[in-house]
Amino acid sequence: MGMNGVLRPGHAQIRVLDLEEGVKFYRDVLGLLEMGRDKSGRVYFKAWDERDHNSIVIRQADRAGIDFFAFKVANKATLEKLDSDLRAYGVPTERIPAGEMLETGERVRFKIPSGHLIELYAEKTDVGNGLGLLNPEAWNANAEKGIAPIRLDHCLLYGPDIEKNVALFNEVLGFYLVEHVVLEDNKTDLAVWLSTSIKAHDIAFVRHPEPGMLHHISFLLESWERVLRAADLMSMNRVSIDIGPTRHGVTRGTTIYAFDPSGNRFETFCGGYQSYPDHKPIKWTMDEVGRGVFYHDRVLNETFLSVVT
Amino acid sequence: MGMNGVLRPGHAQIRVLDLEEGVKFYRDVLGLLEMGRDKSGRVYFKAWDERDHNSIVIRQADRAGIDFFAFKVANKATLEKLDSDLRAYGVPTERIPAGEMLETGERVRFKIPSGHLIELYAEKTDVGNGLGLLNPEAWNANAEKGIAPIRLDHCLLYGPDIEKNVALFNEVLGFYLVEHVVLEDNKTDLAVWLSTSIKAHDIAFVRHPEPGMLHHISFLLESWERVLRAADLMSMNRVSIDIGPTRHGVTRGTTIYAFDPSGNRFETFCGGYQSYPDHKPIKWTMDEVGRGVFYHDRVLNETFLSVVT
Amino acid sequence: MGMNGVLRPGHAQIRVLDLEEGVKFYRDVLGLLEMGRDKSGRVYFKAWDERDHNSIVIRQADRAGIDFFAFKVANKATLEKLDSDLRAYGVPTERIPAGEMLETGERVRFKIPSGHLIELYAEKTDVGNGLGLLNPEAWNANAEKGIAPIRLDHCLLYGPDIEKNVALFNEVLGFYLVEHVVLEDNKTDLAVWLSTSIKAHDIAFVRHPEPGMLHHISFLLESWERVLRAADLMSMNRVSIDIGPTRHGVTRGTTIYAFDPSGNRFETFCGGYQSYPDHKPIKWTMDEVGRGVFYHDRVLNETFLSVVT
Amino acid sequence: MGMNGVLRPGHAQIRVLDLEEGVKFYRDVLGLLEMGRDKSGRVYFKAWDERDHNSIVIRQADRAGIDFFAFKVANKATLEKLDSDLRAYGVPTERIPAGEMLETGERVRFKIPSGHLIELYAEKTDVGNGLGLLNPEAWNANAEKGIAPIRLDHCLLYGPDIEKNVALFNEVLGFYLVEHVVLEDNKTDLAVWLSTSIKAHDIAFVRHPEPGMLHHISFLLESWERVLRAADLMSMNRVSIDIGPTRHGVTRGTTIYAFDPSGNRFETFCGGYQSYPDHKPIKWTMDEVGRGVFYHDRVLNETFLSVVT
Repeated sequence: MGMNGVLRPGHAQIRVLDLEEGVKFYRDVLGLLEMGRDKSGRVYFKAWDERDHNSIVIRQADRAGIDFFAFKVANKATLEKLDSDLRAYGVPTERIPAGEMLETGERVRFKIPSGHLIELYAEKTDVGNGLGLLNPEAWNANAEKGIAPIRLDHCLLYGPDIEKNVALFNEVLGFYLVEHVVLEDNKTDLAVWLSTSIKAHDIAFVRHPEPGMLHHISFLLESWERVLRAADLMSMNRVSIDIGPTRHGVTRGTTIYAFDPSGNRFETFCGGYQSYPDHKPIKWTMDEVGRGVFYHDRVLNETFLSVVT
Repeated sequence: MGMNGVLRPGHAQIRVLDLEEGVKFYRDVLGLLEMGRDKSGRVYFKAWDERDHNSIVIRQADRAGIDFFAFKVANKATLEKLDSDLRAYGVPTERIPAGEMLETGERVRFKIPSGHLIELYAEKTDVGNGLGLLNPEAWNANAEKGIAPIRLDHCLLYGPDIEKNVALFNEVLGFYLVEHVVLEDNKTDLAVWLSTSIKAHDIAFVRHPEPGMLHHISFLLESWERVLRAADLMSMNRVSIDIGPTRHGVTRGTTIYAFDPSGNRFETFCGGYQSYPDHKPIKWTMDEVGRGVFYHDRVLNETFLSVVT
Repeated sequence: MGMNGVLRPGHAQIRVLDLEEGVKFYRDVLGLLEMGRDKSGRVYFKAWDERDHNSIVIRQADRAGIDFFAFKVANKATLEKLDSDLRAYGVPTERIPAGEMLETGERVRFKIPSGHLIELYAEKTDVGNGLGLLNPEAWNANAEKGIAPIRLDHCLLYGPDIEKNVALFNEVLGFYLVEHVVLEDNKTDLAVWLSTSIKAHDIAFVRHPEPGMLHHISFLLESWERVLRAADLMSMNRVSIDIGPTRHGVTRGTTIYAFDPSGNRFETFCGGYQSYPDHKPIKWTMDEVGRGVFYHDRVLNETFLSVVT
Repeated sequence: MGMNGVLRPGHAQIRVLDLEEGVKFYRDVLGLLEMGRDKSGRVYFKAWDERDHNSIVIRQADRAGIDFFAFKVANKATLEKLDSDLRAYGVPTERIPAGEMLETGERVRFKIPSGHLIELYAEKTDVGNGLGLLNPEAWNANAEKGIAPIRLDHCLLYGPDIEKNVALFNEVLGFYLVEHVVLEDNKTDLAVWLSTSIKAHDIAFVRHPEPGMLHHISFLLESWERVLRAADLMSMNRVSIDIGPTRHGVTRGTTIYAFDPSGNRFETFCGGYQSYPDHKPIKWTMDEVGRGVFYHDRVLNETFLSVVT
């Protein structure tokens, strides 16, 4: 919910190598709710506490990775204004008609310098979180089906020219820099965490030669104890864990990185401080980046900079 | 951090009956950091993770209660615009010069229909949270001195005409309604929770005949286990606990209500869902309001509607 | 697991006013596993992590309360020795034949001075905890069905002559005193907590004029967060909560007291320190007993000394 | 607190390469209380909630490792009986006079087949846990100084002939087998966990060619959140972490392994199930031992079987 009207990460479309294996994973292990399938065969999911119809869409493909990552904006006027601002900034945009995705309005799509497709949209059907709007209970059984994150939280994308991403997200979309890792030259950013809200990150980028790569999509859990439960469920389901449970130095969040059956990394995390645009960014240097990323191990694991989809 | 540029609750000035007793409580029991005293004798505190110089100011007076509650706005231009918008809305405003409060810039003060003084300001000295901006640790010893909340989070104020407060906060300041309790007539709000961010509340009001009253100021904790620790520390320090540890149905937060030595209620709480302005408000009716306020007891305790300062 | 061979609380038989209502509560809300019914209509349950066939038995009756509370002993030789020791101590014992309770061996039953029936037994069918004995997982779905306590932990019984209970449990059964509340005369115990293990209590007694009364049976949870989850589930199921979540001063455990549909109080608790027989007992005096029982409220609620079944 | 009268792990004497560095670590980082120094220069510590005078003794030496690990027994008669039973079993014993360790009575020392020195003793001065025995608070400031474990819990020792250790601990000392890892021959134990209480382990052994080696001594924490806090404090103090936070499959405990400045591994852990001697042991096979030891990673890290002191 930034001052330019970008509310939050709204949906991500993920490529999986085997659709039914993917459905089984996202529904039964990660514990998202399966919300529907469209004519092209894509399967739609939402986290239990999300109110909009979908946040994760998977489609079968020969190569894992992310097709696009989208943000919901405040309303249609905001969508029009941001589209216009993007074009004025020199970014070509494309309109995806309402209904191309289930229960989702018109989307404005554009490619950012790191090679990723980003979308904005203003409308997605409010299906509620299952608790109702009148005298609701605090949670329901869906909160304990599988890992059951509360919501899609953010993503970390790898690609070139991330300083141009920062400029675009800041100047046009109103995001602000929360933390960054600076290379040995003390001026080039290796990694940046950006927010359009009071979350410590709504999107993050790492500099990488190959464009358009996915490091992870991230799901929010309620507590450190839910992080433990998530790790237990990953073990019971023989999910490949990359690292964790542990804490990030960056954002202070507690976390697990793991892989879906197609090799797409995802994160289940909790916590992190509240950030505001008047906060000065936190800087990490290369000699301490290990502690910055993995606060307890204090070294990057071998996969962090190399394994992306 | 709302779309109109109101970032967050910034400071509250609280009246205490005995200043040194108050200092001892806010510093040693609640665990705020004492940041300074001004010529008029007011004592300034901040929570350990806050970066601005102060958030709680106490002054000695014959009667407990709150003098004013303030929001930080994005910048001076926002401050000017909101002042102008308030006047255009018919709300007289007053300028408090920079420096009247320690390390705090010019403030725009106005009275809202419920009889409370609200302030806006754009500048307060960034003193940091003690962790630095370069390769920081996750926390430090201040995080465990006393109850040690992370930050001032919100307040709940009692007074008449709260529907006019809602209109003002919504139309001028950009807040949105997150939850409300409706009286038996199914149209008059008994209580409203408003947000200028993705927090479930930045301010809340309860309808009450006497204007300008304080129900509680609220401080954020990191976890349900920290709520237990807070309750333990309250007992060790013989702090008067109103209720808790428990959960609110409204916002789902976990909570303790307790009283400072002067009888001002405060809350130490954790959790609550992330809210967005496109979420439809949640409504509570009088037959379920007990569960809404105290999710486990499911009845209001005798003090909830009657004890305010 | 005391030095006299008394291992642990093994089973309790509880009277309920409506059997099916009771089954629904103990199975679906408390989350015990229904293990079987016998010819007399009694219904048997176990907690998910218990390995023996049953720990809670309910039967329909006109009056709520407890029929008997039993301890498992190390083996049949121990059972014989303790029976003999009881008789030598002047306590008449009765033999209940194997099979009178489902999957349970011969029981030695005796009445203690407070008017309660206590049983000892050496054999109950090991049905396992569902995880198996070969390369087990850490938990399974049963750990999240309802409140799902780990095990039956202890009970608190009300009756007269509790100093004679203490002597009997200490001298014959090998229990030791962990904590006690002393009346204003500084010599008469109002309440005693006794252990046959390193748990802070395996059984407790409160002095009360009416013999044979039940204050509560208690179930162990894994964490303070599971205590919150239990309170939430109680609210969702409209279970009558007596008090909590809170902490006991006595034993330091965190706790909720609530009532089954027949009015029998039960506790879901976590924590408490490890106790050993070489530890000197902790004493509470009447001026601090409120804090001893309810560490946060620091007063007894009105039901603590009066509502028993 | 076993049926043969062995109560609990009582003390361990650890060799460190630099005494003052060791003191700084055990006192300021691990957060044990420094209790005294003796004429030979040894430094004594206890965990905050322990009541006896000391549990960890460090002495400076050229080589890290453990000198001896001791169990407190119920009383002097038990000490005499167990000494006699040990000799009858063919185990030579040695008497260490009272006072050789500060505030500690006479000790019976013997070497077990794996090459470790084990001690039994009945007397150590009860200095209390700082909360008093009359109307105590739930904890005090010592519970938050450094990592601040509650107590010394167990140790894991490496050496040959561990099946003979099992026989000795079972037949003479009354310990029982809780879990074990069996080699590919399906009969030789690689690792065994033994209990003299309802803890899942009071001592454990791993088969290893070199006798008398220490894998780790273990300290008990109250919660998974305290495990996170411990990991944070380790990072802040640049303690070398071996692995964790994670969960063990064996015992289900949550854990961190780390190293003191001399390279002695220690564990800060929480949880694990309650075990009883009538429970059948849990068996782990070599194809699943990785998950047994590190439940989330599901592989042994390279140091687990090789790094001992």
